Order: sequence, then C-alpha cells, then structure tokens
Amino acid sequence: MFELMSLPLSDRANVMPPSPIRKLAPYADAAKKQGVKVFHLNIGQPDVPSPKEYWDAVKGCELEVLEYSNSAGIAELREKAAADYCKQGIEVTAAQVLVTTAGSESLSIALSIICNPGDEVIIPEPLYANYIGFAAGTGINVVPITTHIENNFALPGSEEFAKRITDRTRAIIICNPGNPTGSTYDREQLESLLKLARDNNLYIIADEVYREFYFDGDRPVSVLQLDGSDENVIMVDSVSKRFSLCGARIGYFVTRNATLMDPAIRFAQARLSSPTLEMLGVIGALDTPLSYYDALRTEYTARRDVLTQRLRAMPGVTCPDIQGAFYAMVQLPIDDCDVFCKWMLEEFRHDNQTVMMAPGTGFYSTPGLGKNQVRIAYVLKIENLHLAMDCLEVALAQYPGRTISAEKVTSQ
Amino acid sequence: MFELMSLPLSDRANVMPPSPIRKLAPYADAAKKQGVKVFHLNIGQPDVPSPKEYWDAVKGCELEVLEYSNSAGIAELREKAAADYCKQGIEVTAAQVLVTTAGSESLSIALSIICNPGDEVIIPEPLYANYIGFAAGTGINVVPITTHIENNFALPGSEEFAKRITDRTRAIIICNPGNPTGSTYDREQLESLLKLARDNNLYIIADEVYREFYFDGDRPVSVLQLDGSDENVIMVDSVSKRFSLCGARIGYFVTRNATLMDPAIRFAQARLSSPTLEMLGVIGALDTPLSYYDALRTEYTARRDVLTQRLRAMPGVTCPDIQGAFYAMVQLPIDDCDVFCKWMLEEFRHDNQTVMMAPGTGFYSTPGLGKNQVRIAYVLKIENLHLAMDCLEVALAQYPGRTISAEKVTSQ
Repeated sequence: MFELMSLPLSDRANVMPPSPIRKLAPYADAAKKQGVKVFHLNIGQPDVPSPKEYWDAVKGCELEVLEYSNSAGIAELREKAAADYCKQGIEVTAAQVLVTTAGSESLSIALSIICNPGDEVIIPEPLYANYIGFAAGTGINVVPITTHIENNFALPGSEEFAKRITDRTRAIIICNPGNPTGSTYDREQLESLLKLARDNNLYIIADEVYREFYFDGDRPVSVLQLDGSDENVIMVDSVSKRFSLCGARIGYFVTRNATLMDPAIRFAQARLSSPTLEMLGVIGALDTPLSYYDALRTEYTARRDVLTQRLRAMPGVTCPDIQGAFYAMVQLPIDDCDVFCKWMLEEFRHDNQTVMMAPGTGFYSTPGLGKNQVRIAYVLKIENLHLAMDCLEVALAQYPGRTISAEKVTSQ
Repeated sequence: MFELMSLPLSDRANVMPPSPIRKLAPYADAAKKQGVKVFHLNIGQPDVPSPKEYWDAVKGCELEVLEYSNSAGIAELREKAAADYCKQGIEVTAAQVLVTTAGSESLSIALSIICNPGDEVIIPEPLYANYIGFAAGTGINVVPITTHIENNFALPGSEEFAKRITDRTRAIIICNPGNPTGSTYDREQLESLLKLARDNNLYIIADEVYREFYFDGDRPVSVLQLDGSDENVIMVDSVSKRFSLCGARIGYFVTRNATLMDPAIRFAQARLSSPTLEMLGVIGALDTPLSYYDALRTEYTARRDVLTQRLRAMPGVTCPDIQGAFYAMVQLPIDDCDVFCKWMLEEFRHDNQTVMMAPGTGFYSTPGLGKNQVRIAYVLKIENLHLAMDCLEVALAQYPGRTISAEKVTSQ
C-alpha cells in the first residue's frame, strides 16, 4: 500500500475545485430516492423544449457511418453560424468561427493559447464558477475584482481593472449578460474595457452565451461589434442556453485575429473533432424561427419577475436587479451557504419537497466571500418556481443557522 | 498594427503541432474540387457502418429537452460499460469508469492529473501523433524510445524504459494494439512494464481503443487484467473504432485507483458533461451482438493481408508484420514523406485518382526520424484498397524525390 501513498498527483489535480453547481448532486439523489421532489435551481439547465428543427435534423440523419468531422467544425455549420452572427450585426466570416465542444472547450482553448502557467486573467466576481476550474486546469491565476450586491453587481470601471494589471496579465474575462449576476454591460463600458485592453496588449475574452436572454431594452452589444475589436477579442459562445441544447456540447470560438485562430485550430486538431451528429442537429437548429427567442424572452422575463418579487418578500433576503441571463446571486439570512444548501437537501422537507441551489462561495475567487449567498437559476416553469420559493421561505424560517431572529421571520 | 505584434501567444500555442493526419486536408479538398478521387488512408476513420443499435437509440430518443448529463457520464452507461468490461475479463465497477468526450479527453485528463508542466512521460515511438499534441497542451515532455521497422516495431524491453526514468518521470504510455505500428504486447511484456512502474511509483497509461482489432491468436491482454494493476494503471478507451462511431466522441477513463478518479471527476465537472444524445446512442450500441466484432475482424484481417502483400511487392518498400489495430507504419523509397504526401495530393494523378497518407515524421517525437515513412490506415474496402495501392505503386515510380532508380522500379 505504500506505493499508493507515493504515487503523485499533479498540482492542478489538487487545485481543481469541485463544481459548486454539481458537488451536492449526491445529496439530491439521496433525497429523490426517499421520494422527495427536488426543485433544481442549482444548474442553468433550461426546461424549454429544444427546437423541433434540431430533433428533425438529428432523427432525419441518413448517415450510415458516424464519421469524424473537420477539426474546425463542419463547413456548413461554420458558414451558417457566421451568417447568423452577421444577421445580429456581428460581422464575422466562417473562417473566424471555430466550432468547439461547447463553450467550455472554447474558453479552455482561449486560455491555453494566450496564457502560460502562472499568467494572470482579471475577472469581475462573483464569476461563473467554471472559470476557476478552467484556470486551474491550465495553471492560470485568477485576479478577481469584487462587485457588490448593493449596487446590483455593476461592472467595475476600467480604472479598477487598470489597477490590477501586472506584467503577467494576459486577459480580461467578462460574461455578458452575466452568469451568475444577471448584470449586462453597455456599449460605453465595453468600449472603455477594450481601450484598456488595447493600450496594455491584453485580450478580452467575452463569454456571450446568454446573448438572447435580456429583459429590459435592447439586446446587449457584443464586444465584437465594437470598433477596434479585430485583434484583441475572443468571443466564447454556445448553443446550450439559446436552443436549450445543453447536452449537445456545441459552442464556438470566435475571433477576427488569424494569429489566434491558427493555434486554436491546432488545439482542435489534437482532440480531432466535435460531435458530428450534434453539429448536424445545430445546422438544423439554426433555422429555428426568431419567434422561438421571443417566446423565450417573454417566459424568462416573467420568471425573473416572479423570482424577484418572491425573494424580496422574504425577511432578510436581498435580491439584486437582474437584467439578463437566467441567474440571480441572492443574499440570504444564513451563516454558511454550503451548510445551508446541504441541509436543504438532507434534512429540510416542505410538503415532501425541497430545493437545490448552488452555494455562493464557489462563485468567488476571493476566499471567504459569498458565504451568505446562493446562486439561483430560475429555469423552472412559474408554477414550479412558486413551489420552490415556498420551500425556500419556509426553510429560511426553520434553518438552525439563520442570522435573523425567528420572530422577525415568522412575523412577516 | 503594432498591437498585434506584441499581443502574446502562449508557449503551448507555439509548440502545439499541427496534426500530421489532418494538416494536408486543404490539399485533399483542392484535389476533390478538381474532380479527383482521393483515397483516404490518412485517418483511422473506418468505413464499416455504425451499429444499427446506435442509430435506433438515437433516432428513437423521446427527450424533449436535450439536457446536461452527470459529469461522470449517464449512470446507465457507466453500469453497462463496466458490465461489458467484466464480460471481457476486465474487472471494474461503474464507479471506476468515467465517461469522457472520446479517448482524446480521457488521455488529456489522465496527463493533467498526474503531471505538472515539465514532468516527463516515456512513450515508445513511432507513437500516436496526438500524444505529442496532448503533451504540448499540458506542458509535459515526451521522452521517446525509438522502435524499429526491422523488427516490426517490437516493444522495447523494460530495461530500455528503466534507463530513461528520471525524477521528473510520471508515466509510461503504451498503445495496445498499437497505433501507428500495429504491434501488440503480450502478457509477459505488460507484466514487466507494470513491475517497473510499481517499483518506481510511475503510472501506466494504456490506450486500448483498438482492443477488438487483433488478427492472429487471442485478444490482447488488457493491462487492467494484470495482478497489481489497481493503483498504477489508467486505461484510456473509446467507442470510436470498435463501433465505427468516431463522430460520437464518447470514451472512457478507467482506473481502480479512487485517488485518481476523484480529480478526474473534478476535471470532468469543469466541462460539465459529455454529449448526452451520444451517450444514449452508445447505451444502445453496447447491445450490438458479438457477431459485429467477428465480422469486423474478418474484414480487417483480409484488408491487412491485401495491404501487406501489395506493399511488399513494391520495390524499395518495407511493410512490417502487423498484429492489430488498422494501421501500418511503412517505409518508402522517398526523400521526404512530407513532400511526398503533399505531392501525391497536389500533382500526382493516376486514372484521376490519388491517395492521402499521413507523413511519418509526425509520429516521432525525436526530430528527424520517420522521414521516409508514412502511416497508412487500411480503413477502405478491399476493392478500394487495391485501387489505392495501384496509385501508390505508380506514384513511387514517378515521384521526383524517389531514392531508388527508376529502372529498378519499372523493371518489377
């Protein structure tokens, strides 16, 4: 047995965090085995049906052999995705769109080709937890800028980014609309960030997978729509949320900088191909009529409104204004979100139901932050969202680690 | 424009090689556009139809929403894959099988969790070119042991491995049956390697994706069938070749060492999920009757025999004995395989046909080796294999950089 003791693991194996979105899954499974209904607000898995056009393309596939595809993606998909971007005012060619195995791989390739181990990327926090994972996997240091619930997690001004630039800084990562905060960035904010990046030879990696999810006003500007975005910008995209195709694992790495596309394609060659049948399905999904998105936005706007209203009616709960995506980073009157979320799954029941949420700590790179926050993905039908909020309200009154008095809770 | 000049790329972006299997694809595409028939012997893409059971499962899928799956794979697939291994005499449980996005991701996770940048892995060469890619992506140094066509690329004895162990060595990678050599390793060789690994606290990463492709005698032993394989062994597997499902991107990371499985699952969580529908398809494919494999072996044995016979009849060509997989690493009377393979696509035509092969240089980690070798994947029907060999024979007589006299060639 002493061999086992001395067989080494790598540093990245040790620092790779468990996903805060998924680490409590065994407790949810155990609850379900007891017959308890678990409302999943932990993961950005929309309940909207995937487009008929996707299913038709997949089920109508007449291939006999499911072959590898071109490493950069099926040519027709690259063409069609580029045409779709152009329709949205994002001018790119097929050669500027690399098909990836979901947004995850797109981001992972982006970090790999621009950063050496030990290099730094600046990211506003709370941040999408998996950014920490990808950084761990590639040996990169996350330099966070903490944003605050009091002002709805507004993007810090470019001077805050400027203060954190060192000779190891390679990129700024933004998520617009933002996971987990629901914040969106306007054109002026993006322009000022791009100027900072250009002045300091940094890249901007813009995760825009929630582009279709905006609730008030116009679609957020893509960073690739800005003047001067040819060299410094990589856009990370995915069909997962837009088409309710999280399981397809198809995304895009988009840049007009050919010097970046070349190594990105070599990285793509090393893993051979993205899933062929899924690409064929997405070629179909790109014919989805625009009314699909309109219905999506109407539905999610209503869900956001219900969520916001219900949370704000709970004593001691802070729910920020939410402009896009389908998450809320919410502050609760609790001592420790990891304990609370686990307690919800293991011990709490309300009408034999409970709620799974993602502990807030996993969305901060700064240790110790987010302890009284949770991320809620409002991806359920309104009826179920109400039931989930009923559970949360009762749970907050019963939780042993609550930080406001029980009287105050029950008096409301 | 000077911003572009100073926007940095990472070291790994610079060292990631283009795939020798795919880098000539633009020349093949150009030839096809001219109406030329190109026989693809460059890539291990079998022409055998994917199992009906796969297509039935995919097309019969009744999901409305294509959701994320468990990061470690759909539970039913893990169970069924484990049961399938047990049937083959490889005793593993579902918890010891992590579903990955093809063998590529399995290997990439394996290297990531056991090696720090700068660590070393020992690999017999010629080797599967993408090992060099994965090592480049993770900052790992490949330490090759050159094997030789004269003795059919036989696996070097464990003393050759022992000589190359340093304090940075973390693993030995073997591919059994071997891509690109077609060599297989017997139980005794594997036992001696495992002993070496155990004595030196190294891992063995065994790429066994060609397990079903053996032509003479019994199925090669899996390294997980050896006594003492619980701690030191990671098996990399894939359904790509076995089920002619290269485009599905489903593979497995298999180990009995729970200390390895834990970080492997954290890496899997960072990328969320493998493709859901493809996993459902593979659950179906696992019901493929054993006769599918028997037919596969009969067909590939016949192809190997044709290939070997045809190549050996060409002057100046050396074709080794091939025991498994579906590749041959062949020595040709040429000056430079990269020039030759490109010339075949750009300039050579025989009855308006030509052949695409993978230049041998990409399968060696030692610079300068393999210059007069090519890798041939004999994945075509025998009739087409004959036509491809006709092309190659004529091409070798016409190629300006041939290294034997034209008289000798044409006199045969």
